[in-house]
Amino acid sequence: MTVLERTGGIGGLWRFEGPGSRGPAYDSLHLNTSARLTGFHDFPMPASYPRYPRHDQVASYLRSYADHKGVTDRVELHTEVEDVSRTSADTWLVTSRDGAGVRRRREFGHVVVATGHHWVPRLPELPGDETFPGRRLHSFDYANPVAHAGRRVVVIGFGNSAADISVELSRVAAKTVLVQRRGVHVVPKTIMGLPIDEIASAPWWARLTFPQQRGLIETLLRLMRGRLADYGLAEPDHRIFGGALTISDELLSRINHGTLTVKPAVDRIEGSVVHFSDGTSEEADDLVYCTGYHIEFPFLPFEWVFEPGGRIALYQRVVSPAQPDLYFAGLIRPFGAITRLVEAQAEWIADLVEGVAVLPPVSAMRREVEQHLTAAAARFGTTRAASMQVDFGTYLAALRKQRGSKVLTTRRS
Amino acid sequence: MTVLERTGGIGGLWRFEGPGSRGPAYDSLHLNTSARLTGFHDFPMPASYPRYPRHDQVASYLRSYADHKGVTDRVELHTEVEDVSRTSADTWLVTSRDGAGVRRRREFGHVVVATGHHWVPRLPELPGDETFPGRRLHSFDYANPVAHAGRRVVVIGFGNSAADISVELSRVAAKTVLVQRRGVHVVPKTIMGLPIDEIASAPWWARLTFPQQRGLIETLLRLMRGRLADYGLAEPDHRIFGGALTISDELLSRINHGTLTVKPAVDRIEGSVVHFSDGTSEEADDLVYCTGYHIEFPFLPFEWVFEPGGRIALYQRVVSPAQPDLYFAGLIRPFGAITRLVEAQAEWIADLVEGVAVLPPVSAMRREVEQHLTAAAARFGTTRAASMQVDFGTYLAALRKQRGSKVLTTRRS
Repeated sequence: MTVLERTGGIGGLWRFEGPGSRGPAYDSLHLNTSARLTGFHDFPMPASYPRYPRHDQVASYLRSYADHKGVTDRVELHTEVEDVSRTSADTWLVTSRDGAGVRRRREFGHVVVATGHHWVPRLPELPGDETFPGRRLHSFDYANPVAHAGRRVVVIGFGNSAADISVELSRVAAKTVLVQRRGVHVVPKTIMGLPIDEIASAPWWARLTFPQQRGLIETLLRLMRGRLADYGLAEPDHRIFGGALTISDELLSRINHGTLTVKPAVDRIEGSVVHFSDGTSEEADDLVYCTGYHIEFPFLPFEWVFEPGGRIALYQRVVSPAQPDLYFAGLIRPFGAITRLVEAQAEWIADLVEGVAVLPPVSAMRREVEQHLTAAAARFGTTRAASMQVDFGTYLAALRKQRGSKVLTTRRS
Repeated sequence: MTVLERTGGIGGLWRFEGPGSRGPAYDSLHLNTSARLTGFHDFPMPASYPRYPRHDQVASYLRSYADHKGVTDRVELHTEVEDVSRTSADTWLVTSRDGAGVRRRREFGHVVVATGHHWVPRLPELPGDETFPGRRLHSFDYANPVAHAGRRVVVIGFGNSAADISVELSRVAAKTVLVQRRGVHVVPKTIMGLPIDEIASAPWWARLTFPQQRGLIETLLRLMRGRLADYGLAEPDHRIFGGALTISDELLSRINHGTLTVKPAVDRIEGSVVHFSDGTSEEADDLVYCTGYHIEFPFLPFEWVFEPGGRIALYQRVVSPAQPDLYFAGLIRPFGAITRLVEAQAEWIADLVEGVAVLPPVSAMRREVEQHLTAAAARFGTTRAASMQVDFGTYLAALRKQRGSKVLTTRRS
């Protein structure tokens, strides 16, 4: 087994080396899921870690895990994959380039794509943005609020990064404006004192029906923070778990303190003035785009991963029906920690590679993909991100079932 | 009417002029009660204000209020009162000194003490604190966390200032340790999306019995944040409303993120090492004392304000039974905003001064004080602070009753 890693270290997006180092992380980034459940099943995070560790703690944990599993020595750092293509029915040609620029072609029997999906910043074009005289940056290039102290900042986007970044900007900026195009459910990291991912994996939670789960969380959120409209936020057009959540312990409080102003979509930019769709406008010195990432695999043909409409079309979110020995790990967005789901994906992939688990016929795989996309569309919409959304418990059970049926007698320890 | 004001402006503790300016305020200080209910009854805070305005907004509002009431021109700034004493049964001699050091003696018919009780920092002696080589300061001298960036800071105390200050230190300090001697209920600024003071003044709240109110808030807090022990905090030895609350939207979250460590009482200090009562210790560069204030009136004889044990002994928390034309405004700690209670006190004092309200005999006043102190002792303990604690609704009703009985026909508009 060989691991080809583009960056200079193990840790993925959690590896952050401070200002100047590009990546989805920033100084204040902490886990949004609990250390207890975000650690891999057989290798808990250190007991000294807080409930929500910081990026450097997570990265350090991931390095230890790689050591523990004997993977570290098999990682080629500074090695970027340029192309993955078929050479025969059961071999892959992988073209990579190392830190010295030396290109190398190697054959492999199986390929697992585990790049994550936070590497190609999405920078939407806003009408007139070319006239903006100030600083514009994507959260990919954001490290901390220091550079924005005393300035007027407009943060575009309303996901987790937008929440974290606007909250900390609101403490040092002259003015912080957060642009929210659509209503999104804002959820604290803990409810009843319990990390939300611990709730989602609790036995009592699994005994509730989905409508019961949804009703319970909606009631608790209402008791905790009232209606989002009370904060000047757009109310979501879907019920909770009907789309991505924005997780923040502090966002609503900052709004209550007047340090964070929420505006609807940007209509246009005229010089340093940002006009919003409600007719209001704000002068800005800086624009921070927390507009997420393109999900792209430039080293692979589009149709191996996506359906024509652009949604991800993988059997059980892992296997390309077009190329059944091409696997994807971590190309999911769970309500809850991703790690254990990736662990379950990895175990299944290992079973498939070892031949102790077997895939169904391509037609059956395509049918499952179709069913998944239909269900996802009904619940989360038809965006690419929606096609990645999974329920923690349901998805974990599905993965285990894939394994279970074939490994009853050959299960590894 | 003459107002003698020690500082250079109107606004009391809300008047804060940044680093170097001493006082209970600091850069990040915001109201803990809502703008809507903290504004005086007949002069709302500006509609542009957020739910929880910042100190400068509150100070600006108070200046406008003084203008609105025609008081501004009657305020003598930079004028410290040195002594208040009797000259006859119905006159007072007030000795003050102005900014140029000129001493002046004047006679007045009535004296209202409205100094607040946040002017004499309480700096407890900790065993060995004289050996501490680092920086020691009281929150009275704290402006913002900048001076503590990258340093190890121990914050002593667990009131509102300790919460605010330790939370913001936790974002820039190398380590932030919060010392909690006793369990205190930690409450967010809003519950069900409603400011807690708005809940406490709502008609539906007043219809609940005290046990129902207490049970409701305890249940909601449990649903919002679980048990305090889950955060490593001491559980209070009293139920909610059985003592002062610590109000913070962010404290518990910072503990969950490992950026804030909670320790029990300081046992002793040895050089730069702070030893705690559980046997653990921490190296510290700075000690920040958020240990509150002495409640003192150096310009008055002790027995005019306090009973021998040191608790405040004023009829209806306003009138000195020993000197019935000596009044105290704002010498209370309500659950909720203080402003409207002070407004009601002021209206009653005005009625007394004008003779449209009349005090009961001294013996009856002393009996009421006795009853109040007995009730306060049962509910909040026997500290000086406990003797100032009042329930918003109950106390407001009591003040109105004092007025109402005498002003039915002479009520001013």
